[in-house]
Amino acid sequence: MAALSGLLPGWLRGYRRQWLAGDLTAGVVVTLLLIPQSLAYALLAGLPAQAGLYASIVPLLVYACVGRGYAQSVGPMALTSLLTAATLSRFAEAGSSDYLALALWLAILSGLILLIMGMARLGFIADLLSEPVLAAFTTATALLIVLSQLGPLSGLHLPGNALPHYLLALWEQAAAWQASSLWLGLAVLGLLLVSRRWGAAALQRLGIAAPVASVLLRAIPVLAMLAGTLLPPAWQVPVVGPIPSGFPSPVLPLIPLSQLADLAMPAFFIALINYVQGLSVAQLLAARRQESVDPDRELLALGLCNIAAGLAGGFPVTGGLSRSVVNADAGANSPLASLVTAAAMLLLIFLATAPLALLPLPILAATIIASLLSMLNLASLRRAWLAERADAVAWLLTFCLVLLLGVDSGIMAGVLVSLATLLWRSSRPHIAVLGRVPGTHHFRNCLRHAVESLPGVLMLRVDESLYFGNARQVRQVLLSRVRQEGGVRQVVLVMSAVNRVDTTALSMLEGLDQALQQAGVELHLAEVKGPVADILLRAGLADCFAGRVHLSTQAAWEHLAGPVDYQI
Amino acid sequence: MAALSGLLPGWLRGYRRQWLAGDLTAGVVVTLLLIPQSLAYALLAGLPAQAGLYASIVPLLVYACVGRGYAQSVGPMALTSLLTAATLSRFAEAGSSDYLALALWLAILSGLILLIMGMARLGFIADLLSEPVLAAFTTATALLIVLSQLGPLSGLHLPGNALPHYLLALWEQAAAWQASSLWLGLAVLGLLLVSRRWGAAALQRLGIAAPVASVLLRAIPVLAMLAGTLLPPAWQVPVVGPIPSGFPSPVLPLIPLSQLADLAMPAFFIALINYVQGLSVAQLLAARRQESVDPDRELLALGLCNIAAGLAGGFPVTGGLSRSVVNADAGANSPLASLVTAAAMLLLIFLATAPLALLPLPILAATIIASLLSMLNLASLRRAWLAERADAVAWLLTFCLVLLLGVDSGIMAGVLVSLATLLWRSSRPHIAVLGRVPGTHHFRNCLRHAVESLPGVLMLRVDESLYFGNARQVRQVLLSRVRQEGGVRQVVLVMSAVNRVDTTALSMLEGLDQALQQAGVELHLAEVKGPVADILLRAGLADCFAGRVHLSTQAAWEHLAGPVDYQI
Repeated sequence: MAALSGLLPGWLRGYRRQWLAGDLTAGVVVTLLLIPQSLAYALLAGLPAQAGLYASIVPLLVYACVGRGYAQSVGPMALTSLLTAATLSRFAEAGSSDYLALALWLAILSGLILLIMGMARLGFIADLLSEPVLAAFTTATALLIVLSQLGPLSGLHLPGNALPHYLLALWEQAAAWQASSLWLGLAVLGLLLVSRRWGAAALQRLGIAAPVASVLLRAIPVLAMLAGTLLPPAWQVPVVGPIPSGFPSPVLPLIPLSQLADLAMPAFFIALINYVQGLSVAQLLAARRQESVDPDRELLALGLCNIAAGLAGGFPVTGGLSRSVVNADAGANSPLASLVTAAAMLLLIFLATAPLALLPLPILAATIIASLLSMLNLASLRRAWLAERADAVAWLLTFCLVLLLGVDSGIMAGVLVSLATLLWRSSRPHIAVLGRVPGTHHFRNCLRHAVESLPGVLMLRVDESLYFGNARQVRQVLLSRVRQEGGVRQVVLVMSAVNRVDTTALSMLEGLDQALQQAGVELHLAEVKGPVADILLRAGLADCFAGRVHLSTQAAWEHLAGPVDYQI
Repeated sequence: MAALSGLLPGWLRGYRRQWLAGDLTAGVVVTLLLIPQSLAYALLAGLPAQAGLYASIVPLLVYACVGRGYAQSVGPMALTSLLTAATLSRFAEAGSSDYLALALWLAILSGLILLIMGMARLGFIADLLSEPVLAAFTTATALLIVLSQLGPLSGLHLPGNALPHYLLALWEQAAAWQASSLWLGLAVLGLLLVSRRWGAAALQRLGIAAPVASVLLRAIPVLAMLAGTLLPPAWQVPVVGPIPSGFPSPVLPLIPLSQLADLAMPAFFIALINYVQGLSVAQLLAARRQESVDPDRELLALGLCNIAAGLAGGFPVTGGLSRSVVNADAGANSPLASLVTAAAMLLLIFLATAPLALLPLPILAATIIASLLSMLNLASLRRAWLAERADAVAWLLTFCLVLLLGVDSGIMAGVLVSLATLLWRSSRPHIAVLGRVPGTHHFRNCLRHAVESLPGVLMLRVDESLYFGNARQVRQVLLSRVRQEGGVRQVVLVMSAVNRVDTTALSMLEGLDQALQQAGVELHLAEVKGPVADILLRAGLADCFAGRVHLSTQAAWEHLAGPVDYQI
């Protein structure tokens, strides 16, 4: 019995009775959100609507077994769906059986990549993307999705995955839009936006209790869909079309190995985005309970979810921000809430696919657009601009690149832009000339403070770790400072801000020492940190600097001031 | 007259008579080195031998006009030649007219890229490559070149540009080697290596003055070549073949725009390598005279040299390390030495191309191999291993990737490996718990020092700038430390080692503060540096941390110890 309970997930063994009500409510509320989203995101990915249902159910079950988050809701996401469409449209016609097969494999591949990264403990890879770059990427992608949804909204066919494609297609097909589709879509969009903005207040004024009002509001998209299925056929609005009942048998179509190789790179980027997304959701939820998240565990769980989604006939999935927050807010206390959602979705797929077939596409497009407007994050640009200009430039660069190149090239560009800002920022470190604050043992920047200095001694502090990206620059600046000052006999390099040195920096220090020696100047080091001192020792530089490494700047000062100074 | 002299390069206006003898000697000595190298590197690049002559002469003239180095010798280089061959062999058959046209355009494109980078002041881009990665790249490339020269040395044809290609070709053609070629090549190689190792000592023992001996030794490759042209035709050794006399008329063949676009990326990497190479040569020479180098100026000069090399019918060029050092050692005082070399090469090309046609290829291969052995830099691996394990891993990774993928993909891999080590190293910063050294105002790591602490107060120092690469990690570690300690009411984050923060880190600090507040813990900041404080202010975090930012750790201590502590 004990052995059996060891096989159960931790949350189940520790389950408390008072959690049940919250879990049940949350499960139902999330289902209301998930039905339109799962169908819409499948269509966004260029897949038949049922793929969204398959991709919604199985990952929920898997995450409940292996995941650690109490309210994480794993399933199809707008960002990933567009990335899937952008990737697959390069290899096959949307809707073809090849396209379907590639979608499964994309999910399985990105799942395997996540799994491997988790086993190799590469959780830190989420940090390849800086926050402004991620915000710009999300905003640009949301904009692209809204544009792509103008197609189903207005009855047009908009191929491609970047701004130029959409604009060109809109221009060419400007005369072909269908009035009935467009008006229906805009009406539902208006209803969704109005209810989101003023719905809660209005229901409250009607005297409806807040929890009930919240469930009602969440049901509005589903109610709009239900109403849509009752539209008279005379309107001739395009609909989702027949959805098979039940689950497909899990058959994995074989694809050529060369195609699998082509999918590897896109699968990596989808895995990266899904992981960053899923991890930030997990951290947000964990922070509410003062818990911490194990990124490597999260990698493993997301990896298994994606493999399962692929095997079940779905496409790449991750932890959805809005659904997970709704889940937590509606009272989810454990993954049981997700199991409830999965059960409800299973009921739907086995019993109620017939009405789904009549669902008008413009209504689905409207629900996607409404859910995406919150992803447009222009505030992040303002924030980056205030904090650090380079981050704002990175934001704009990523935003433009994603719009112009599409999401798939855009994410690669984002990683490169993140790394470039890092390199750029640390490549030109702040270097201060120090002096001693009179009467103290403190040494400060001589430009900001009234300080005293020793004749012939130049004290310099480099405010950055020394590494290949700035070694050359630091050497040049130090040498030219010595030359400018004139009459310098000793240079003290204050290393208090140098947290690390690498091989390139060691060579630089050696070369700098030689260059200064040739110019008749002695180089001293002060306040070398423990780890840096260890490296100097290992690389043999400690010998070469013997007698010229000082524990503190004050010690260097006393050494250089010489015995005369001591007698004062 | 004054206006006219303003047009002259600076070195010519300030020319001193006593420089003349050194410049003349150096010019002649470098010519002896340049003749075999220019021919051999052209063949290495897959081009006719005369392309090497053109690429040698024109850049020397251009650099003398616009460059700043006094002894920089710009021309064909082994590394660049192999990169050229690796790039062009993907688009055309070596030796075809298409191949020739692409070589010109590759030089012009990489010249334009250097020029644009110079005008945009992007000199810092040389720092994309860390020293271990560059050393590994150079070593692997030298090894590949030695392997590729086994072809001409043994009369085989070895196509491709990576280790697997060479091994396969050697295996397939193992039976086809020509004994006469191989023995001749090995004999010359032996002669070159022996003369380099023991030549100077032997000549000195014969009573020959050191300067004369040095010139004699430099002349050995040329003498070997001369002797080679006199070999009896019965030996049937492959030769260079007829070289046209004089200069080709500067006609630029047109190539399709799509091919030009294909060349852009390789041209960028060749420009990068040429710039890194040229800049390090310039800095080495400048350091001997305690001068400094303007990287952007060097970019402009190298850019113009490459454009000129392309227009003259050559291929990409840069400052050669060995030739420049020989130039300086032989007494070069100004670019006049390069002009002398250019004039001597011009004489050669107009008057003496006939004997060059009879030059045996195995002898040229032997001179290349001999000149490359000094590029095999295994000491750099040992050095990296001693200093920093991650650098040694980067070395090995780059080395293997270059051997396996070839030089062209290898250089890109090198850049990525450099950046990855940077990210990896700063992603897991050292975080120390601090305490006060009794009787002082110093705060040190409580694991290394006997320190005192305040009850309920946790003081932490993060030894790294906070940025997107470590923000998540730092947040996790800080939160779990607080949890582990137990009973913590106040946390002091000592920011003395934080040189920069970015937008991602600001969000992290805000989120950390909220998470700690929810847990009933107060977050304080101490020793925030000027530039970091400015950013906190701009981003509005200073308000949110009002009253909780302390000038020094001691100030934070006194604040938290409260009035009771003051009365003691």
